[in-house]
Amino acid sequence: MSTFNRVAIVGGTHGNEFSGIYLLKKWQESPALISRPTFETETLFGNPNAFRDNKRYLDCDLNRQFIPADLANPELGNYEQSRAKAINLQLGPKGNARTDLIIDLHNTTSNMGPTLILLKNDAFNTQLAAYVAERMDNAVILFEDHCSMEEHYFLCSIADQGIIIEVGPQPQSVIRQDVLEWMDDMTAHILDFVELFNKGEVPTLPETVSAYRYVETLKLPENEQGERIGMVHKNVQDADFTPLRNGDPIFTKFDGTEVHWDGDYEAYPHFINEAAYYDNNLAMSLGEKVDIPVIK
Amino acid sequence: MSTFNRVAIVGGTHGNEFSGIYLLKKWQESPALISRPTFETETLFGNPNAFRDNKRYLDCDLNRQFIPADLANPELGNYEQSRAKAINLQLGPKGNARTDLIIDLHNTTSNMGPTLILLKNDAFNTQLAAYVAERMDNAVILFEDHCSMEEHYFLCSIADQGIIIEVGPQPQSVIRQDVLEWMDDMTAHILDFVELFNKGEVPTLPETVSAYRYVETLKLPENEQGERIGMVHKNVQDADFTPLRNGDPIFTKFDGTEVHWDGDYEAYPHFINEAAYYDNNLAMSLGEKVDIPVIK
Repeated sequence: MSTFNRVAIVGGTHGNEFSGIYLLKKWQESPALISRPTFETETLFGNPNAFRDNKRYLDCDLNRQFIPADLANPELGNYEQSRAKAINLQLGPKGNARTDLIIDLHNTTSNMGPTLILLKNDAFNTQLAAYVAERMDNAVILFEDHCSMEEHYFLCSIADQGIIIEVGPQPQSVIRQDVLEWMDDMTAHILDFVELFNKGEVPTLPETVSAYRYVETLKLPENEQGERIGMVHKNVQDADFTPLRNGDPIFTKFDGTEVHWDGDYEAYPHFINEAAYYDNNLAMSLGEKVDIPVIK
Repeated sequence: MSTFNRVAIVGGTHGNEFSGIYLLKKWQESPALISRPTFETETLFGNPNAFRDNKRYLDCDLNRQFIPADLANPELGNYEQSRAKAINLQLGPKGNARTDLIIDLHNTTSNMGPTLILLKNDAFNTQLAAYVAERMDNAVILFEDHCSMEEHYFLCSIADQGIIIEVGPQPQSVIRQDVLEWMDDMTAHILDFVELFNKGEVPTLPETVSAYRYVETLKLPENEQGERIGMVHKNVQDADFTPLRNGDPIFTKFDGTEVHWDGDYEAYPHFINEAAYYDNNLAMSLGEKVDIPVIK
């Protein structure tokens, strides 16, 4: 297996997700916290202008701009599209990146706790997942490996290994101490693991790790004009990673009627009622629960 | 006592507080829900352009623009200052308003539950407080009667009686069903009470009502440049209306040190870590617990 020489930690990819932004400040003042002997760690502030304006983004979502065709398209020139090209130049280029691992720090308003989102199912990621899960009682492992790294549009997909740390519940523009500490701890465990991995000293890990795998995204009830006509049912609110079964209430329309879930599998909702999805009426993601073999 | 002929319900005074905005839509479709025989009810969308842009405000906080000198000052002409003048024309003018009661609907990211904020201590308000408290187990009564109605800068201070319904916790740009229902219920109880009050049929109420009274506002720890160097302590996060005693930890600085509260009274924090205060570094309000005599 290859070793990791350059790691980048990105905060503020969304300008109103404050935990990563404040952790970057802390680490810039105390770089030893993210330094490890066998690799270099750099930090990057993803979307400083969105933070200045206290918004998720100015023109479009920065964390959706990293498919190769878009990065190569000179006609895509708004702020985030331009910022994506600059970040790709700095950390990438995608497909042949100078950065071996990108850790991108995010908050959600959903009750997801500290969630480690992994974009591919390989030895490094499965071992990392098992390592982190053993060290953080409330860590959640979520695989979003439904497409290739090249096809992923996330910032962290620039590097051959890209990880998202997604921690909530935290309202936009707020710093919660619990959420900040979870993100800080999970980042430290990842850096520790990379160090052990580089040195060939990964401790004995279990055969499998309990995780969730992304399946689909549900939208809120809409009318013909695309306006919301309902909301997440209160039984589902805050119940991220609690199973949803066929027939369970899932939405309440503003006229009071309930919508029940019509599904043929035991689904684990997450990103439930995430504030950032106000403009596209996404209600939640659904995943399935899986035991992922740890590849050794 | 005077009767109430015209009541206005205002939603969306802050554009990213969604409960009131969606309740206005619901009531516009079903006006009977807010109609009562003895008075007229109208609705008003406070800051539609801020909602369009998914922000609290465009230029300045609309709910701070209603002191008479500002309303009379032609040099104050930005969007919210102009909007304040227009609303004052429509519902007011302040000091001699055509609207007898304004109910202004707000959300907070703080864990305040359904809170009824009253701006003066008189027969109507104390009776209303007692009436609502008896009908909603989780209702909180908060008096902000530290200045006169004329001196208050809130939108609802246009009318002789102005009430704020403040419900949380709800992230900005989210609709939670529980929060929506609490706001809907509290509004209905207020309208019911006005109807009974007008008819002289207010039921027997207790001698006193348990409430909180605003005392002071605390800021987050800042450096000399006015930047945040700390956050709300995790023991205090979500603990709105839980007493704080001298020596209790209240902030955690980003360097890990704790700040303890140095106060000479039993304080009841609220608006703890409210997201909207990201730009002025307010940490929380403090109140004292009081038994308010119900004036008959």
